Amino acid sequence: MRPIARIETVFSQKFGIPRQSGLTNLPSRIVFEKEYQNPDALKGLSEYSHIWLIWYISEHDTGKWSPTVRPPRLGGRVRKGVFASRSPHRPNPIGISCVRLLQVESHTKEGPVITVEGADLLDGTPILDIKPYVPYSDSFPDAEGSFASSKRKCKEVILPKHLAQKIPEHLQEGLVQTLSQDPRPGYADEDDERHWSFLFADWDIHFRVQGETAEVIDIQEKDVPNE
Amino acid sequence: MRPIARIETVFSQKFGIPRQSGLTNLPSRIVFEKEYQNPDALKGLSEYSHIWLIWYISEHDTGKWSPTVRPPRLGGRVRKGVFASRSPHRPNPIGISCVRLLQVESHTKEGPVITVEGADLLDGTPILDIKPYVPYSDSFPDAEGSFASSKRKCKEVILPKHLAQKIPEHLQEGLVQTLSQDPRPGYADEDDERHWSFLFADWDIHFRVQGETAEVIDIQEKDVPNE
Repeated sequence: MRPIARIETVFSQKFGIPRQSGLTNLPSRIVFEKEYQNPDALKGLSEYSHIWLIWYISEHDTGKWSPTVRPPRLGGRVRKGVFASRSPHRPNPIGISCVRLLQVESHTKEGPVITVEGADLLDGTPILDIKPYVPYSDSFPDAEGSFASSKRKCKEVILPKHLAQKIPEHLQEGLVQTLSQDPRPGYADEDDERHWSFLFADWDIHFRVQGETAEVIDIQEKDVPNE
Repeated sequence: MRPIARIETVFSQKFGIPRQSGLTNLPSRIVFEKEYQNPDALKGLSEYSHIWLIWYISEHDTGKWSPTVRPPRLGGRVRKGVFASRSPHRPNPIGISCVRLLQVESHTKEGPVITVEGADLLDGTPILDIKPYVPYSDSFPDAEGSFASSKRKCKEVILPKHLAQKIPEHLQEGLVQTLSQDPRPGYADEDDERHWSFLFADWDIHFRVQGETAEVIDIQEKDVPNE
């Protein structure tokens, strides 16, 4: 298995990444490795509205796997089988994510580039395969999904205007969507008023959660070395 | 990447396999490799109605890939990019198939066994991963799917009673569903009245297609050596 491409996202650390794909409108860029920079291989892809990314769970390739895991959706208190979860701690570190296709550019300075929306991947994640989403074989809206059958109840997000202005307008909605998913670990109490922070593109986002509200309390530029 | 399991299906050769998952009600068994025979790893899986199989496209791992392919759905006459298709001729030989979950048995003589319905896989295909199907992140019924957006128009199938009786009743509907998909290669003319045959469980199915009708013309037991 060789990476065919890498994805560029706003998420440069694990904390903060939405726990499934499709939960934000944040754009990501897929840039191909030299060997796979072939515009022919993408011919017809733009006829699809959604695509599958098959990716390498690089941050968890320890060679170890856990038969059971504690899904954050269950508050981290219940054990489920790893094959009954989408946890990264699997025997083979392969992830699948369905994302909305925004644009296919065949010829850029970086070769062919695909822009997608809603990826739940760490910046730089190696992509192993790209497949079209085929509704008649992939879509089962009435599937029963256990604890993951519905979207998590979203938090209301407060993003004060003077803080929002610190990041580009096209990322503001995506930040709100990211926070509305409540990125805190499953073990965090509902009433835990601790301050949290995560990296989001070039910024460090500080927030807290109180009841059903997530509030941004500060936005700082990421430390840049030698500045 | 190591196979965690193998799947047992009625399809012992490539010809005849439906071109996507979910098109038949044929059952398949997933039997785990020794190292992964751990009932805990399946805990909670039966709460899901559908699961993803991530599989190794073993019959096509030639180390070669084609930037373009000719999808059978387009009559084999139009070239599309390999990433705009689900063709096996991909850089990384990984397939994904959504199947209906029928049963999870934790303790059999063969270890844990999962029974699923509608797999489009060759008998013995190595399974790399099993993931629950999560409707809110995986299901996009309104996705635009280019030439693959709707099920192929099915053929009407004629399976004469005296032939149907040669195979077990629980496989008869699956055989009809398999033939209704028209397994012939894309280049076969609509009017090509040639006789075709494919292996289906322990039988050799002979059929022909005329216009919108696929007709079974003979069913023979598979040659068994030393009989």
